[in-house]
Amino acid sequence: MNHIEIIGLVAATCTTSAFVPQVYKAWRYKSTKDVSLSMYLVIVLGTILWFIYGVYHNSISIMLANGITVVLAFLVVLLKIQHK
Amino acid sequence: MNHIEIIGLVAATCTTSAFVPQVYKAWRYKSTKDVSLSMYLVIVLGTILWFIYGVYHNSISIMLANGITVVLAFLVVLLKIQHK
Repeated sequence: MNHIEIIGLVAATCTTSAFVPQVYKAWRYKSTKDVSLSMYLVIVLGTILWFIYGVYHNSISIMLANGITVVLAFLVVLLKIQHK
Repeated sequence: MNHIEIIGLVAATCTTSAFVPQVYKAWRYKSTKDVSLSMYLVIVLGTILWFIYGVYHNSISIMLANGITVVLAFLVVLLKIQHK
């Protein structure tokens, strides 16, 4: 794997795993007042579309990265609704 | 442009513009306690790497989407630091 693809892999890992600390913070402190619900609804929609895009392009990395992000973003939506 | 690329364009628009409501909320209410700083630092790092990836691949859409997201995510970092 050349260094450009390694950059892409690290980038995908960052932009996917980045949501974990927000899920943890919302779950741990049960407080989401400052978190934007509309942001996460649009992220869920966008990552579902990216997932479909990945299916059409047979791209495992696009499917994997966006499949994980959909779940994480949806968890923030649930936590946001639960802890207005 | 075929319908798959339209899906990709809409997906990119969603996952880029999604950060605008969070920037607005943090700026408008001057409150970011519930927002995860580490999430946005990792998003900034990841989108910079995606931007570099886009430069290597000569992909205007990857550069544009991630260039905008870097700015938006960095604004959230500044607002987070300003309004602990």
